[in-house]
Amino acid sequence: MFKKVALVGATGLVGKEVLKLLEKRHFPLSQLVCLASSKSCSKKLMFRGEELSVECLSKNSFKGMDLAFFCVGGEISKEFIPYALKEKCIVIDSSSAFRQEKNVPLVIPEINKEALQHHQGIIASPNCTTSILLMPLHLLHKKFKIKRIVAATYQAASGGGIELMQKLTSESAEYLKTGKHCSNYPYAFNLFLHNSPLNEHGYSEEEVKMVEETRKILEDKKILITATCVRVPILRAHSIAANVEFVEKLPSLEEVKKLIQDAEGVEVMEDFKTNRFPTPFDASEQDKVFCGRLRIDRTQKNTLELWIVGDQLLKGASLNAVQIAEELEKLLAL
Amino acid sequence: MFKKVALVGATGLVGKEVLKLLEKRHFPLSQLVCLASSKSCSKKLMFRGEELSVECLSKNSFKGMDLAFFCVGGEISKEFIPYALKEKCIVIDSSSAFRQEKNVPLVIPEINKEALQHHQGIIASPNCTTSILLMPLHLLHKKFKIKRIVAATYQAASGGGIELMQKLTSESAEYLKTGKHCSNYPYAFNLFLHNSPLNEHGYSEEEVKMVEETRKILEDKKILITATCVRVPILRAHSIAANVEFVEKLPSLEEVKKLIQDAEGVEVMEDFKTNRFPTPFDASEQDKVFCGRLRIDRTQKNTLELWIVGDQLLKGASLNAVQIAEELEKLLAL
Repeated sequence: MFKKVALVGATGLVGKEVLKLLEKRHFPLSQLVCLASSKSCSKKLMFRGEELSVECLSKNSFKGMDLAFFCVGGEISKEFIPYALKEKCIVIDSSSAFRQEKNVPLVIPEINKEALQHHQGIIASPNCTTSILLMPLHLLHKKFKIKRIVAATYQAASGGGIELMQKLTSESAEYLKTGKHCSNYPYAFNLFLHNSPLNEHGYSEEEVKMVEETRKILEDKKILITATCVRVPILRAHSIAANVEFVEKLPSLEEVKKLIQDAEGVEVMEDFKTNRFPTPFDASEQDKVFCGRLRIDRTQKNTLELWIVGDQLLKGASLNAVQIAEELEKLLAL
Repeated sequence: MFKKVALVGATGLVGKEVLKLLEKRHFPLSQLVCLASSKSCSKKLMFRGEELSVECLSKNSFKGMDLAFFCVGGEISKEFIPYALKEKCIVIDSSSAFRQEKNVPLVIPEINKEALQHHQGIIASPNCTTSILLMPLHLLHKKFKIKRIVAATYQAASGGGIELMQKLTSESAEYLKTGKHCSNYPYAFNLFLHNSPLNEHGYSEEEVKMVEETRKILEDKKILITATCVRVPILRAHSIAANVEFVEKLPSLEEVKKLIQDAEGVEVMEDFKTNRFPTPFDASEQDKVFCGRLRIDRTQKNTLELWIVGDQLLKGASLNAVQIAEELEKLLAL
């Protein structure tokens, strides 16, 4: 059992979800230390009926710690994870800082938990969009090999943190009151291309992560992905319209659907009669990734169209991190 | 000159825009008759400084009329257009009722105004999403031939009429006040797949229109399109993430960009340095269709990724209809 567990970024959106999940899933630990930046480290958090004082993250925070969840941005992960490693504290990092490092397994437990066995102190949890995309696809990849994915995303405000959620709700309230937008680049009743840095080919960092992380998780460098990532005025849960071409011939739509439904943590939710398919509202605060409107794309052979929706704070981040911890716990117990 | 012009659906979202455009663009006419269903035909509308009483649409509405704009649903178009034709009144129909009829030209003036010459009384204006998609693509199609498009849409509430806009704003206000959604299928801070009827392959009517109308307008039955149409919580302007494969080799991105920029009614708006690309806010109440984030898709040869945003009430409907009328006027003057 991990006796002493640190939660870095405990007051952020993902950190708070980790806290809830550790309680809800009865994660075995004897002490939890909540850590945050100086601006949040006077806060109190409830855990298992007790009030915990948030402590200020410092290089000395990891003394005696067995396990640390890092639920912060890449820069803070890069700065503080080395101090945790020095103390032999195992780190589960939700940031992108170490995801592409050779010795760092990038893990979605339902897909590649065996990669955990070779960790060297850091395990990375993938980008939210990548996790949600792969949950319904990995079994199909095993059988029919993904060749190329064309994806368009519909990403929620909470992917950008509490500030972006507040921007969306305050601007929306203002617009509803005045009928006017507050700027020439509003978020209320508007959408915009994901504003992460663009590479020399014009793809955003978010889009590049989908490519690189998919290849690493599915251990197939040949998978091609082109994506357009978009921030929509929604508070929680990301959606993806995915057109997926396979190398091998696909079986009937019914069999494809069965394979998706068989994937652990995935629920096919579709009712063609009532035209009812998953929405971000359906997926919010749900552990499962929802999938629907499966269609054989008749414009190209071996190609599937599907609609995927998942809570990016849960399976896209906190839940995946806690599941990794649970798997590590099982390995320790062996 | 068309002396007497009827505007059917004058009190609807598209009809109101037609009214504004006829005034703004100084469309030549001696009399305008505004028509609406019995529930709206007591309303008054302003046109060129005069108050017009809306009249109730009936089979006798078209006596002596030279031109009629139909800005209503397909069912009403189907019922009343025959009465207009009987009176030798030329009809510009914004509904889908006649778009696929052989003798009905389906026209976007910037793309195929020559098709107008063979009209037999009805000219159809395309589906909003199709118009917005094709505006930046038709010149590229002429040069390099479109092979296949994978599209995902982000469609605004106003595409579903005033009621859907009101649903979005009232539900949003309610959510902001109470923190709760009003139903299990909310629109506020949520999105859903376009709920037009689904065909036997699982594609919605909106998605099928994109395929069929593109083929008719570009006069190329081989063009392949697979689309996922989504309603997002936005009031005005549709966006499309389009992955477009061409038959011929594409030139440099700069040359592609120039060809798009050369298309009449299209504006390339992109600033890779500041990560600023078109949003629905930018396109709202604008005649032009905006396009940006042009990228060569490196996962497939001859393929372009682009982001397209246009006001679906204007270029997607009313503006296109008025432009058709202007072209008919020019033909009459010859």
